[in-house]
Amino acid sequence: MLTLSFDDTSRKPRYEQLYRYIREQIASGALPVGDKLPSKRNLAKHLTISLNTVENAYAQLAAEGFIETVEKKGYYVLPVVRRARHTPAPISAPEPPATRAADKPSAYVLRTNAVDAASFPFATWSRLMRDSLREDHTTLVRELHPQGDRELRRQIADYLGEYRNMRPSPDQIVIGAGTTYLLGMLTELLPTCKFAIEEPGYTMLARTLQSRGAAFETVLVDDEGMDPARLRRSDADVCVVTPANQFPLCQVMSISRRLQLLDWAAERRQRYIVEDDYDSDYRYAVKRAATLYRIDKSQRVVYFNTFARTLTPSLRIAYMVLPPSLLDVYLPRKQLYSCTVSGFEQRTLLRFIRGGHYERHLNRMRTIYKRRRNAFMAGLQPLVDQEKITLAGMQAGLHLLLTSTTGRDEASLVKKAAEKGVTVFGLSDFFHNKAPLTNTVVAGYGGLDEQTLQRAAAALCRAWR
Amino acid sequence: MLTLSFDDTSRKPRYEQLYRYIREQIASGALPVGDKLPSKRNLAKHLTISLNTVENAYAQLAAEGFIETVEKKGYYVLPVVRRARHTPAPISAPEPPATRAADKPSAYVLRTNAVDAASFPFATWSRLMRDSLREDHTTLVRELHPQGDRELRRQIADYLGEYRNMRPSPDQIVIGAGTTYLLGMLTELLPTCKFAIEEPGYTMLARTLQSRGAAFETVLVDDEGMDPARLRRSDADVCVVTPANQFPLCQVMSISRRLQLLDWAAERRQRYIVEDDYDSDYRYAVKRAATLYRIDKSQRVVYFNTFARTLTPSLRIAYMVLPPSLLDVYLPRKQLYSCTVSGFEQRTLLRFIRGGHYERHLNRMRTIYKRRRNAFMAGLQPLVDQEKITLAGMQAGLHLLLTSTTGRDEASLVKKAAEKGVTVFGLSDFFHNKAPLTNTVVAGYGGLDEQTLQRAAAALCRAWR
Repeated sequence: MLTLSFDDTSRKPRYEQLYRYIREQIASGALPVGDKLPSKRNLAKHLTISLNTVENAYAQLAAEGFIETVEKKGYYVLPVVRRARHTPAPISAPEPPATRAADKPSAYVLRTNAVDAASFPFATWSRLMRDSLREDHTTLVRELHPQGDRELRRQIADYLGEYRNMRPSPDQIVIGAGTTYLLGMLTELLPTCKFAIEEPGYTMLARTLQSRGAAFETVLVDDEGMDPARLRRSDADVCVVTPANQFPLCQVMSISRRLQLLDWAAERRQRYIVEDDYDSDYRYAVKRAATLYRIDKSQRVVYFNTFARTLTPSLRIAYMVLPPSLLDVYLPRKQLYSCTVSGFEQRTLLRFIRGGHYERHLNRMRTIYKRRRNAFMAGLQPLVDQEKITLAGMQAGLHLLLTSTTGRDEASLVKKAAEKGVTVFGLSDFFHNKAPLTNTVVAGYGGLDEQTLQRAAAALCRAWR
Repeated sequence: MLTLSFDDTSRKPRYEQLYRYIREQIASGALPVGDKLPSKRNLAKHLTISLNTVENAYAQLAAEGFIETVEKKGYYVLPVVRRARHTPAPISAPEPPATRAADKPSAYVLRTNAVDAASFPFATWSRLMRDSLREDHTTLVRELHPQGDRELRRQIADYLGEYRNMRPSPDQIVIGAGTTYLLGMLTELLPTCKFAIEEPGYTMLARTLQSRGAAFETVLVDDEGMDPARLRRSDADVCVVTPANQFPLCQVMSISRRLQLLDWAAERRQRYIVEDDYDSDYRYAVKRAATLYRIDKSQRVVYFNTFARTLTPSLRIAYMVLPPSLLDVYLPRKQLYSCTVSGFEQRTLLRFIRGGHYERHLNRMRTIYKRRRNAFMAGLQPLVDQEKITLAGMQAGLHLLLTSTTGRDEASLVKKAAEKGVTVFGLSDFFHNKAPLTNTVVAGYGGLDEQTLQRAAAALCRAWR
């Protein structure tokens, strides 16, 4: 059994001390590859610490690819080879800098929505798709259930139970072709409601609400998340928030802010919070806070998530979890909606999650994205050292915020970067309403490999020196 | 609360009187779709009848698909077309009549929307899916084009050129997850327009327009199709029609009627015709008339079709062809819509059509359905010979219309058929507004094999003799 004494004078929390200790044990070989870790309960008892502490440490190790969860079995040490296996597969690697014009436009496009879809496990997916086509005949020839395949919904419910501590019934889950499709459906379930969305935020939400003719307002986000005082003034009935990792500001909504939002929702009938948990699977350092859905006591939270971001944008599978109060509105109307997701892919995704492939894929991607983030940050270090920029957004997601500390505005940063062949985006681009120019640009690193990111960072160093 | 006085001199038991009363309330719209019925206990108390009577009436309504039980919630009114859906459709042929009670309910469910999805070419599809996963990497990892895969759109354009003599550009085509999804998008492109839909017709269209909050009216169909005089009086801007094979009346719109509709559309700006070409691939005898899209000279026709009906309902791929005039409205807004169909399946469908598999599949299905139709018609021949019924709808599609020539109304036909284990549907079920009982029932033959259809027809002969 693992043994360590905690240093309670340390500024590091216990879970982090435990995480570091186990990591060292793995690195030194004291915990060999394939070894099973003690169960969380046993270790907590053994070290006389809370179960929570162990859970956090294990989660962190799993997130970083040191250990792996095997369903109903436990935690196992992963081989180093596997942790490092990924040979970066650039979608289309740009030519080496020497052979190309340094200022060729869009040599490096740092989009926030770019993902490393080339790491999508095509072979596994293909095999599971074949299995589904062979074995699920009766399911595949039937009219689809409007909420989506029941077994997939049960699998998603189990997943949310295991990784989000949520306990929805499969009957509360509605599967649809993308988050914006589901948001559109919500506007139909709540036709008289006014929506509030985050400012800055994800523009597609505003566009969807707009095209649906739904009333909506933007509400400014401060350091802790959507401002409840402003939300109250907006007179909205439904707010749409990204508490796990605010887009694009990359902050985690504080607990007190979460509680304030829940209070706001509980104040009146027909108030709801849409919790878009987008990107919450890509957390690198900090631990994941409990979802709003989980701590909600008044059935006011609609939980949203998507597989497009974690698998490939080509796969249009998202879902929402309706609280029982909204289910009462949805169920009598459910026959109005044909399911929008192919039965073939629902069955394949079911097998993918059930077989543990999804969790393994996430672990692998977390490692890949963390490396990309590190490579990009390392490349930007000269600018940080020269106190030209500060960085933010490292904890989660697939982009960084780069802020000039020398008074350069975003337009100038974007322009200079473009001259060196790098496309970054001004923060004000993510505001729905006219925003003053900031000193911040947004740079997505998810779609480029480490070498390319280092080159892109080097180009930015030249651009902003 | 529902109120009726029971006729105790009637030979009909109270539960049946209650059942009929509620059914009429649903048909007339007094009890709208989605409405919750009173609890059994409350209704029994209110009408001072026994709980048992209410239970029997509700059970009857549920068995016939007029209402649906939602666990722990209560009873809700179902939309018409969906009424058949939840009665179990035998995917595998039911046992031979000898071994089962002749009047066992729903032994043969003749749904209009049942297709022979078991003939879906799983092996070919699986192979092409694998090819796509292997060869289309760069396409599959990219964000999807909002209109759908460009090569698939080109392939569809070619198909329409070859089989419909239409010459759309791939840029006019928008691929989406189902016809109702695309109709929903149209309501957003034409937010101020009033829609006219066929009466009788496909209820899902009305549901979609209703849930979108779009203004719409129903316009009666006569022998030639939607009546232009009535259409004019409706003051609608957009009419939705099924000229190739009117649903559910199975008639081909006459050429003069087509021209009249086109004239109507050309009269004013912002008038459009949505041509739903659904089922036009299943024509057995008569030749296909030119589509409205093809003979339109004023860019007023939006052409709709789907692959769900010809391949399997599990596949959610439909498309629309926008006329250039509407494309001008769509294009500036297209970034508001994420594509709702998976890239994997778009690429697989591309290969399926390109490789000639789609055309072969259609030919095969035409033969299968023609055989099924013939088997069903042969089985019904005794009733025709005895001049009890006449048949219609043989030329196309997947259902027949059976009309009593002895003055029996549809309710009696449906009830007698049900007693012999056959579920057919009164024509008035397909009316959006209250319709008088007709002498016609609608019987879908697409989902049952020849032997089963013969048995079903034999049961109908016994029922209606």
